[in-house]
Amino acid sequence: MTILLTNAWLLTIDPAMTTHNPGWLQIEGTTITALGSGTPPTIENAEIIDCGGDIVMPGMVNTHCHMAMSLFRGLAEDVDDRLYRYILPLERQFVTAEMVRAGSALSALEMIQGGVTCVADMYYHETEVGRVAAGAGLRAVVGQTLADFNAPDHQTFDEGFALAEQLADEFAGHSLVTASIAPHAPYSTGLQMMSRIARWSDDHPGVIVQIHLAESDVEVHWARDTHGQSSVEVVHRSGLLKPDLIGAHCLHLSDSDIALMAAAQVGVSTNPRSNGKAGRGIARVEALRQAGIPVGIGTDGPMSGNTLDLFAQLAPLSMFAKLRGKSRAPLAAATVVRMATIEGAKVLGLAQSIGSLEVGKQADLIRVSLAAPRLHPIYDPYSALVFAALPSDVTDTMVAGAWLMRDRQMQTIDPQKALRDALQIAAQFNAEIIRIDGTAP
Amino acid sequence: MTILLTNAWLLTIDPAMTTHNPGWLQIEGTTITALGSGTPPTIENAEIIDCGGDIVMPGMVNTHCHMAMSLFRGLAEDVDDRLYRYILPLERQFVTAEMVRAGSALSALEMIQGGVTCVADMYYHETEVGRVAAGAGLRAVVGQTLADFNAPDHQTFDEGFALAEQLADEFAGHSLVTASIAPHAPYSTGLQMMSRIARWSDDHPGVIVQIHLAESDVEVHWARDTHGQSSVEVVHRSGLLKPDLIGAHCLHLSDSDIALMAAAQVGVSTNPRSNGKAGRGIARVEALRQAGIPVGIGTDGPMSGNTLDLFAQLAPLSMFAKLRGKSRAPLAAATVVRMATIEGAKVLGLAQSIGSLEVGKQADLIRVSLAAPRLHPIYDPYSALVFAALPSDVTDTMVAGAWLMRDRQMQTIDPQKALRDALQIAAQFNAEIIRIDGTAP
Repeated sequence: MTILLTNAWLLTIDPAMTTHNPGWLQIEGTTITALGSGTPPTIENAEIIDCGGDIVMPGMVNTHCHMAMSLFRGLAEDVDDRLYRYILPLERQFVTAEMVRAGSALSALEMIQGGVTCVADMYYHETEVGRVAAGAGLRAVVGQTLADFNAPDHQTFDEGFALAEQLADEFAGHSLVTASIAPHAPYSTGLQMMSRIARWSDDHPGVIVQIHLAESDVEVHWARDTHGQSSVEVVHRSGLLKPDLIGAHCLHLSDSDIALMAAAQVGVSTNPRSNGKAGRGIARVEALRQAGIPVGIGTDGPMSGNTLDLFAQLAPLSMFAKLRGKSRAPLAAATVVRMATIEGAKVLGLAQSIGSLEVGKQADLIRVSLAAPRLHPIYDPYSALVFAALPSDVTDTMVAGAWLMRDRQMQTIDPQKALRDALQIAAQFNAEIIRIDGTAP
Repeated sequence: MTILLTNAWLLTIDPAMTTHNPGWLQIEGTTITALGSGTPPTIENAEIIDCGGDIVMPGMVNTHCHMAMSLFRGLAEDVDDRLYRYILPLERQFVTAEMVRAGSALSALEMIQGGVTCVADMYYHETEVGRVAAGAGLRAVVGQTLADFNAPDHQTFDEGFALAEQLADEFAGHSLVTASIAPHAPYSTGLQMMSRIARWSDDHPGVIVQIHLAESDVEVHWARDTHGQSSVEVVHRSGLLKPDLIGAHCLHLSDSDIALMAAAQVGVSTNPRSNGKAGRGIARVEALRQAGIPVGIGTDGPMSGNTLDLFAQLAPLSMFAKLRGKSRAPLAAATVVRMATIEGAKVLGLAQSIGSLEVGKQADLIRVSLAAPRLHPIYDPYSALVFAALPSDVTDTMVAGAWLMRDRQMQTIDPQKALRDALQIAAQFNAEIIRIDGTAP
């Protein structure tokens, strides 16, 4: 089956940032087989879709997420001790396979509606996340979290490794879902366990490692007080600092930390809205990129960042860099769009197959409607995407040649059911919050 | 004619932040005449609108804008010298009454679609802006800009005053549009002219004064080098620091500047996206509010901020305050929503008639659909508005009891015509930009 998209404003995000307007793109099976400007080729039996001048671009890559946490969205907003007061008690009581399924389905729905075609997730009961992604047709890197606090799905690290093994087995060879292992953070995993995870990872080539890295003052103090080093140096000592690693957040980095990370060829996921909302600081994104480190964009969990589309991250990411640099120049709009697509793919080790519209790559793409007056005039399509477009402008989402959304209609998820299941569990949370607060929140 | 809204999640934004869910609200003519919880009253011949559980709240107040500049949206993004390289030459060549009409109409359309019901604008040919607002049914404070550079509509300050007089005459007694005078900025107006404007303002009670204040390093240096004072101190000396003044931006403020402003009872418009995009810095919003200064939210012109709805400002405003305070606590979500509504109304001197849903106030309100899965669960409606809602969630916009948008259908503006007129002029800009650059942008 061949699909031919015509009359599109194609932003390929290839190395030359080639655009075609009007452009066309041909898809056979899961793969982009041709694209160009001007008159499209004549193909028999192709489904021809006139894009009416809309933008067609690579689907966005969300490089850090906890999909199940959509059920905590907006809970205990503006409260500094929310982690210990609300989240950990709620997680211990309520995080079950069923909860993870419901929260992940709501998040998958939101990501598909908002133009995300690939996500890196880390949480508990992660096999369920992989199944939800596979069912929704979403590309995903799913990481079993290992932590030394009372995790909801394992009591010991041995049990955690067993879950990671199961996850790797279940998705071995899967076309969309890649297994991953996710030590929660240096301070909550410890040097010894990080070393063991590094060896485990060596024995499981292709299994991505995800970790919260250099995120908080707590972590900085732990590394200094326990090891007399920076957090990045401790991770390096454990053997985990290597090309398969995704470091999420990376707020507290010295120049020598960045040099270590660059030499080790790790990838970074920056999470501007999550970091901004927590008042944690502004990541040194320009310095990381100048050191040659690929930096993708993450939403973090919806309790921290509230939204799962990348549009909500683009303007904050750009503004933070400009505020840090005291100039309009840092992180130009086109660079931000590259980070949301090809650079995110690189962070996930998937740049050979996704992240740009090029012949031979997987057909992971979105169509962005230009119907809204608020987008016009458009002197620069990247500026329009970064500073004016909304996730609700995405009308069509395709992964591996399959439509997940067509003309805003979901193809693989029943939105009513996903929302109903989620709200049923959220109602239980609400009752518990009222108990914790002693009053209605 | 009576309108009864039923089955609404009413956020009144009254002093007690009263909510009614399900709530009802009764409108007679231009005015809110009753509201409450539970079963609505039975009223003969009323138009009854079931809001299906959606949020109904006061329309948002955009306290700083240059509506006509929508035609420059996204132009020369990421370029530090854009003002001198692009904007001023383009303004001198292209800013005519016709251009101002077209740009303002596009902006009025976008604001109504995004839930803004009142705007403070300052630009050239400002009578045209007032006419566009009046025609669209939008509430507006329209300020004739006075500046000592080659303004597009006046060569001398005397000519500028004549335009301000005409503006005040045309809208004297108008129910929606209030005339205003707008010295561009301290450095571009000068002490002597600011003094003259202060006296003119004393002779024109009710005419709001708008000024760009403490916005840039250029201004800080000018005030120090020319007067040995801060910019706020120079404005104070001119007599302009008074309750009718709206200071836009206010980024470079000392504690004593803030004390001066508080004593003078001025209002402030903070413009987070514009300031963030320019890398100019983070306003001391918490300090201003703690000093008792009302702080409203502005979009700035769409060349600086790109969007004209306030939803795009809410999360950045909150994140900036939390980054400045290194905590989640500053500017809680409910406070941010107050700033977007009642506090903005206070800045514009309109808090007695708009900014909250209370009996006797004007019926300026919006309905925000909760249909999108990305908004749920909702533990706190203010968090949902600040961190998850989009301008595209606004389905209905009412000013003074008249619908400007119903179920996303525009009632007072032809969107196709507004967009067509705007794009026609933007095409001329594009040709000139290509000439300036010597290459395609």
